[in-house]
Amino acid sequence: MVLHIVIDRDQPLGEQLLRQLRGLIRSGRLATGAQLPPTRLLAEQLGLARQTVAEAYERLTLEQLIEARRGRGSFVRALPAAEAERPVATTARLASAERIAAFQALPVPLLRFADNPLARWDFIGGSPEPALFPHEDWRRHLHAAQRQLGQGGAHAPPAGLAALRESIAEHLAYARGVRCSAADVIVTQGAQQAFDLLIRVLVGPGDVAAIESPGYPPITGLLQAQGARIASVPVDEQGLVTDLLPLEAKLIYTTPAHQFPLGVAMSMERRRALLAWAARTGAVVIEDDYDSEFRFEGQPRDSLQGLDTDGRVAFVGSFSKTLAPSLRLGYVIAPPALRDALLHAKHLADVHGPSLLQNVLARFMAEGNYRKHLRRCVAEYAQRRERLMAGFAGPLAPWLTLLPAEAGFHQAALFKPGVAIDAPQLAALARRVDVGLYPLQAFAAGRDGLLMGFGRVTPDGIAEALGRVAELLA
Amino acid sequence: MVLHIVIDRDQPLGEQLLRQLRGLIRSGRLATGAQLPPTRLLAEQLGLARQTVAEAYERLTLEQLIEARRGRGSFVRALPAAEAERPVATTARLASAERIAAFQALPVPLLRFADNPLARWDFIGGSPEPALFPHEDWRRHLHAAQRQLGQGGAHAPPAGLAALRESIAEHLAYARGVRCSAADVIVTQGAQQAFDLLIRVLVGPGDVAAIESPGYPPITGLLQAQGARIASVPVDEQGLVTDLLPLEAKLIYTTPAHQFPLGVAMSMERRRALLAWAARTGAVVIEDDYDSEFRFEGQPRDSLQGLDTDGRVAFVGSFSKTLAPSLRLGYVIAPPALRDALLHAKHLADVHGPSLLQNVLARFMAEGNYRKHLRRCVAEYAQRRERLMAGFAGPLAPWLTLLPAEAGFHQAALFKPGVAIDAPQLAALARRVDVGLYPLQAFAAGRDGLLMGFGRVTPDGIAEALGRVAELLA
Repeated sequence: MVLHIVIDRDQPLGEQLLRQLRGLIRSGRLATGAQLPPTRLLAEQLGLARQTVAEAYERLTLEQLIEARRGRGSFVRALPAAEAERPVATTARLASAERIAAFQALPVPLLRFADNPLARWDFIGGSPEPALFPHEDWRRHLHAAQRQLGQGGAHAPPAGLAALRESIAEHLAYARGVRCSAADVIVTQGAQQAFDLLIRVLVGPGDVAAIESPGYPPITGLLQAQGARIASVPVDEQGLVTDLLPLEAKLIYTTPAHQFPLGVAMSMERRRALLAWAARTGAVVIEDDYDSEFRFEGQPRDSLQGLDTDGRVAFVGSFSKTLAPSLRLGYVIAPPALRDALLHAKHLADVHGPSLLQNVLARFMAEGNYRKHLRRCVAEYAQRRERLMAGFAGPLAPWLTLLPAEAGFHQAALFKPGVAIDAPQLAALARRVDVGLYPLQAFAAGRDGLLMGFGRVTPDGIAEALGRVAELLA
Repeated sequence: MVLHIVIDRDQPLGEQLLRQLRGLIRSGRLATGAQLPPTRLLAEQLGLARQTVAEAYERLTLEQLIEARRGRGSFVRALPAAEAERPVATTARLASAERIAAFQALPVPLLRFADNPLARWDFIGGSPEPALFPHEDWRRHLHAAQRQLGQGGAHAPPAGLAALRESIAEHLAYARGVRCSAADVIVTQGAQQAFDLLIRVLVGPGDVAAIESPGYPPITGLLQAQGARIASVPVDEQGLVTDLLPLEAKLIYTTPAHQFPLGVAMSMERRRALLAWAARTGAVVIEDDYDSEFRFEGQPRDSLQGLDTDGRVAFVGSFSKTLAPSLRLGYVIAPPALRDALLHAKHLADVHGPSLLQNVLARFMAEGNYRKHLRRCVAEYAQRRERLMAGFAGPLAPWLTLLPAEAGFHQAALFKPGVAIDAPQLAALARRVDVGLYPLQAFAAGRDGLLMGFGRVTPDGIAEALGRVAELLA
């Protein structure tokens, strides 16, 4: 580890050293509190006499740029604000300026949620209960897996570790009626990367892509980045209105198990119509199955992928809802015609995902810990869902109606007809009494209501928080 | 966790169950060896009498599809090959077929290396010595970091954890003369994702991008995926020949510290010329600094980014060479004009990277373990480099010349004029005596020689392996 200083043997040595050290400090490259190398070490590194370095340090001490701490060495002092060098210019004219501006203007609607601290009772969507995280089992597998770090060749397989793909295929066949083997699985950096790879491989500038309206916002940004034309297709109480799909669409993005954000499950009739439409037009259907592992009532419905015998459905899932979003583990079950293209896209995007985490998850699934964990989650979320329904049937009934959902860990609530309440304003008021509310209109323009995630509030917390909201409304 | 079976109350119950279980097994969705749920559990789940489920299991046993193991339950038996159901069709006509084929045809030259097991003495490039991995320090920080798993909001910041960005900025200012603060750092999934994000934000269909020739192959695939026109600019003994850069290029990708694959460092004159050219044309320069932390002789040269006062250089680095490629940790230091666009691109690509690994690396760097580790690596690789040079100056001198490189952990070797040896054939022969060799022409068409990585062979191993190669050539 070497401090970046370049010495030209043909110039005065001490002066060069002093000038560069001063520059490093003034520019902030050596930050306040940073320790300078011992004079002996720096002298050796630069091929200078130790005395030359010591003199430069003395000079910097006189300039109040560094200070010597007895027995510990020399440290950078805080600079008077005026001293700090002007950083790099921000006004460079760049040939790609237009393209850069277009990227900067893309909608990234979830970005801002990351910055807000959660309220004490926070109904944020898509965030599982941290207390449910299976720390003990996870830690055990982590210790075993970490011994393999740094082993193997330069890189792991872009599709993901074989053991993990096996476990995912088995889980999906068993729990979601998906037709697949390990060879069909590509492990991704969360579901988001699966969407990115699919969209890059399927649509280019000017191509039409159909999405549900209302729908999952990050898909819009991805399609815009590709220059695609977006067809918004409405959702009713049976799910996506397949009669309104445009014939020229090259892909359709849908959430059949638990429509985002409204929560409805797609009817069997619509599922069949969608597959027939895809067979007629040659479109690929992206089935986003983001949180259907949490099922509370009714029989599970066949996945679109399981109904498809034609290889037109790409099934996307995630461990963000069942374990933790910060793991960034998701997958796509690729139809045979897309598999190689998706693998190339994955390789170009980031070569492959971190093998340590894949290894841990593979062990966790193979030993049955994942099944056990899902059972625990479903039991816990079922309780929360009941408390949520009780709250909306009770204290909140005058103002709001909860939309039905069989699965998943959020529900949408709509203001009743005639109720004139501004959801963002309600959310702002609720924050003051420690309740986090999310206006539905952020996800579904024109639908006035709330998106109620129950991943971060305990059953008793839900009762307490909904009572507080009712007081605000009364 | 629920077996995916859908029961229609209006049809004979036992028959439906039997048919679906059979289908699950024959299609491989319930794989050989998989355990069926206990009859009591499945009966409860489906709302059937336990006897109905038990009868279905008996029938499947008679059909030799499952077997009961005493006291353990029922398990799927191996199917005769002919029994297995025909999987999903692979011939669906897809509207995006052309685009899919184009992606499938993209060059992903590193993909095939992941499949080959390493030879006993393997001169693969880009792969660090596993024995150098700092297991003890890493494990300590991993244990501390894993307690935070599942904590926090739904998502971490797309730019990466603040503590890690601080440490990276400090390290780069100190060791590589980079002008940056934590706000300029975007943590990526290896360097590859940094290139992907930069290229997506900077070039669209028809735009010109300049790359070094010979150069790093995965960049070509990324540019082709964007539909860019590629200008290959030659490299000489001073590095990139800046006089030959095309004025219309919107970006130039370069490896100034250690040219890939030839190893030359870019001269100061060329660095200045490159920055002047960028100022004139508005191009962005991507500086790939992939393994320059390993420096063995000469003064470190200023990074292009450190020389740039205009905000035209995006500096990309990686922990793949210094720690392990499987961690998938890299970063880009974004010029101010690109920062927001890159953050949007990162958010759309995968939201953010796994926070567990970022957390571990942040602790590892903050406690000085990274500096200590780099010192160990440089000392070890310096020894290997000497043995490599000795081998090429000794036993291999009649056939090959090692190209000079001040930094990095691979060197290129060229066949001497008049030596008529086919590098791929030599590599095939070497495999038989347990030596892994990599023809240079895979990375640099027309350059006949070898790419000699010294990350995976010990000093004594290098002497032994080069002796074996000399025997093959003699």
